[in-house]
Amino acid sequence: LNFQSVKRKFFLVANIARTSEFSLNDLPGAGRMDIVCRFIAQSLFISHGVRRDSAAIVTLLGEPEPPKTVLIKGDEVKYMSPDERNIAGLLKKSLRLKVEKSWKKSSPGIYISSKDVEEVLDCFQSSKIVYLREDGQDLVKNISIDDFLFVLGDHIGVPDELEQIIISKSDMVASLSPISLQADQCIIILHNILDRIERGWSCG
Amino acid sequence: LNFQSVKRKFFLVANIARTSEFSLNDLPGAGRMDIVCRFIAQSLFISHGVRRDSAAIVTLLGEPEPPKTVLIKGDEVKYMSPDERNIAGLLKKSLRLKVEKSWKKSSPGIYISSKDVEEVLDCFQSSKIVYLREDGQDLVKNISIDDFLFVLGDHIGVPDELEQIIISKSDMVASLSPISLQADQCIIILHNILDRIERGWSCG
Repeated sequence: LNFQSVKRKFFLVANIARTSEFSLNDLPGAGRMDIVCRFIAQSLFISHGVRRDSAAIVTLLGEPEPPKTVLIKGDEVKYMSPDERNIAGLLKKSLRLKVEKSWKKSSPGIYISSKDVEEVLDCFQSSKIVYLREDGQDLVKNISIDDFLFVLGDHIGVPDELEQIIISKSDMVASLSPISLQADQCIIILHNILDRIERGWSCG
Repeated sequence: LNFQSVKRKFFLVANIARTSEFSLNDLPGAGRMDIVCRFIAQSLFISHGVRRDSAAIVTLLGEPEPPKTVLIKGDEVKYMSPDERNIAGLLKKSLRLKVEKSWKKSSPGIYISSKDVEEVLDCFQSSKIVYLREDGQDLVKNISIDDFLFVLGDHIGVPDELEQIIISKSDMVASLSPISLQADQCIIILHNILDRIERGWSCG
C-alpha cells in the first residue's frame, strides 16, 4: 500500500468492537461499532467530498477473533457515505474475509488484516506518531506540518500495557481540549488545526 | 422553556429533512436525517456525558408538513445516546405529535413546534446570534464568552431569501475553517473554541 500522499492517518484502538458478523440495527451493541463508524466518517469526510490526504485505521479487539485491523484510504475509497449505517455495512463486509498479517482488499480503499496495535504502529514508523491523551501537552502550541499518525483510544481508553507500547513508539503525547472528548470529535479538531496551518490561517 | 443556563445553542436549517414518518434503516433517504442526527449528537455529547449548557435546534423543511422545529435541551434530555439510529428514533417519535406554534414536549428534554426559521431566531433575540458561512470572518479571532445562538445550513446551504432574514437578525457572520465542512463538524470546532476560552487554554 502506498501512503505517499496520505499525510493524515488516524488510528483508533477499539477495545470491544466485534470482529465478525453484527447487526446493522444495533451498532452500539456490536462493541460500540457506532464509535468506530463515526471515527472513520470524521477522518475522511468533508462537505461534499472525501479527504484524499487522510486515512482511518481501526484495530478491533472485540470477540470472537481479535485482533483485526481495518484501514480505509481516502485516496482510494468509493461507495462510502458519512452515515453510520453505510460505513458499518462496509466494515461488516470486510469482516467476512479470512484475515492474514498482510493487508487484503475488501472493497475499493478498504483493507483488512490480522495486525495488532504494535504491528500497525510499526507500519508507520516513518510518520510522526502522536498519542492523544487528556493530560498530554497542548497540541495547538506544538505542531507544524508533517506526516502524521494520530493514535486514539475509544470510550474505554487504552489498557495500561498497550499504552506503554504506544507511548514507547510515539514522538509526542498531546491533548486537544480541557474537556474529555469522543474519538471522532478529536479528529475534527485535529483536521481543523492542520487545515488552518496548511492554508495560512492562524490558530488564534 | 428556560434557557438560563443553556449558553450554547446550535441551530440547523435542514432543507429537506422529512417532517413525518421515516425509516430508521434509511436515514439519508429521509431528507438526510443522518445529518440532523449527527448535528444533534455533536451539539450535546462529550465523552461519557451530555453538555448541560448546550441545546440543539433543527428546523425541518422537508415534506410533507414543513416547517417543524425540534429542540433538544442538554440539561433535560434523557434516554439519548450518540448513535444516529437512537437519535433518529427519538426524532421520529416527536414527529408523531400534532404540532402548534408553542413548544410541546415529546420526551424528556425534546420539544417540537411548527415554528419556522424566523420564529426560532425571534425566540433567541437576547442571545448573540452568529451565522456560520464559509466566507465569514475568522471566529477564533473575534470571540469572547457570551450567550450564543449559532446558525448553520445543512449540505444544501441556506436559500437566498432565508439567508437574508438570518443575516438581518445576526450579530456576526463567521467562519471556522478554510475548508467547507459539514454542520456537525462545525459544532465540534465551536465547542472546542469555547471550551478553551472558558478553561483558560489559549487558542494558539
